[in-house]
Amino acid sequence: SQIISEKESTAGVGVDQELISSVPSWNPEFVKRNFTEAEIAYCRGQPSSESSFAARWVGKEAVFKSLGVSSKGAAAPMKDIEILPDESGVPTVTLHGDAKSAAEAKGISKVHLSLSHSENVAIAFAQATSS
Amino acid sequence: SQIISEKESTAGVGVDQELISSVPSWNPEFVKRNFTEAEIAYCRGQPSSESSFAARWVGKEAVFKSLGVSSKGAAAPMKDIEILPDESGVPTVTLHGDAKSAAEAKGISKVHLSLSHSENVAIAFAQATSS
Amino acid sequence: SQIISEKESTAGVGVDQELISSVPSWNPEFVKRNFTEAEIAYCRGQPSSESSFAARWVGKEAVFKSLGVSSKGAAAPMKDIEILPDESGVPTVTLHGDAKSAAEAKGISKVHLSLSHSENVAIAFAQATSS
Repeated sequence: SQIISEKESTAGVGVDQELISSVPSWNPEFVKRNFTEAEIAYCRGQPSSESSFAARWVGKEAVFKSLGVSSKGAAAPMKDIEILPDESGVPTVTLHGDAKSAAEAKGISKVHLSLSHSENVAIAFAQATSS
Repeated sequence: SQIISEKESTAGVGVDQELISSVPSWNPEFVKRNFTEAEIAYCRGQPSSESSFAARWVGKEAVFKSLGVSSKGAAAPMKDIEILPDESGVPTVTLHGDAKSAAEAKGISKVHLSLSHSENVAIAFAQATSS
Repeated sequence: SQIISEKESTAGVGVDQELISSVPSWNPEFVKRNFTEAEIAYCRGQPSSESSFAARWVGKEAVFKSLGVSSKGAAAPMKDIEILPDESGVPTVTLHGDAKSAAEAKGISKVHLSLSHSENVAIAFAQATSS
């Protein structure tokens, strides 16, 4: 007899918020260090690229928290956590490098993410799922 | 042999926030377009109906995001996403019309939701679950 | 034939936010009533203990909401919901007393939590899981 059994469970959750004005998206070094080329192109094409960079920045922080790994401090670049919209506009997370390795070591197969920004605050929520 | 296997998984998450003052709950057309009669009765019965409408409004936005469907823009009414407290006060989501169809097409069986408002900001988090 | 089937599901979610200045962490009675000795020691050892107390306070509120039980109002102490960092810094929830009983009655085995504070706002998100 065939047995089909699947288990999915939450590995961790993450929330983050920042004042949009506190995210230095005007600084080319900050942007280049923390965003992929595809993210930069996307944010620059949005009505308020400052808000888009800020939302993505808190998104990266929220994803990082959901992975449940120790922070390397301000020195760690966030480029390894890439956030791009899918065809429905849902922010979709792709992990690279150290972030990918950390997720794989924990059996994390998917990170769900949502972003929001009001006039001056950006907020993000992430849920890491293992299966 | 009988095989019992159940799988529940997260289909999407949604977060939203707004300044309470930016939600036009003083506008009867906005209210009638976006809230059900039961929601209106509930909000009007609360100590601060302005805050209750605002929390429910961001709740609808968060639920919408968690469904992962393309937005129809500002023209889409939010009445299809109904949020009412259960007997313990937990905000409970009932989907109608297009929102219900979209959720069914994705196998979404339940949307968990939480709302919060401080003095001037309302925030909501939603998690859509398929099973 | 052997049947292996596991099911984990979300029992509830909770979000909460407060202005850091509105959490009376300067009040010894408030602190003693709502925080365990280990939490107090942790918060006092942080760079901004006011922010740490506030983040933990909204964390307790978010966890409480995720349990989906009726509130006993402002009179209920929050000491039963203890939040301490694990070795990676992830806020980890331990339930005691009434909160523990309520969770057990609902089959809740784990509450995931994330905290964030900006300069003046603390925010928390919780997800209660049953298995």
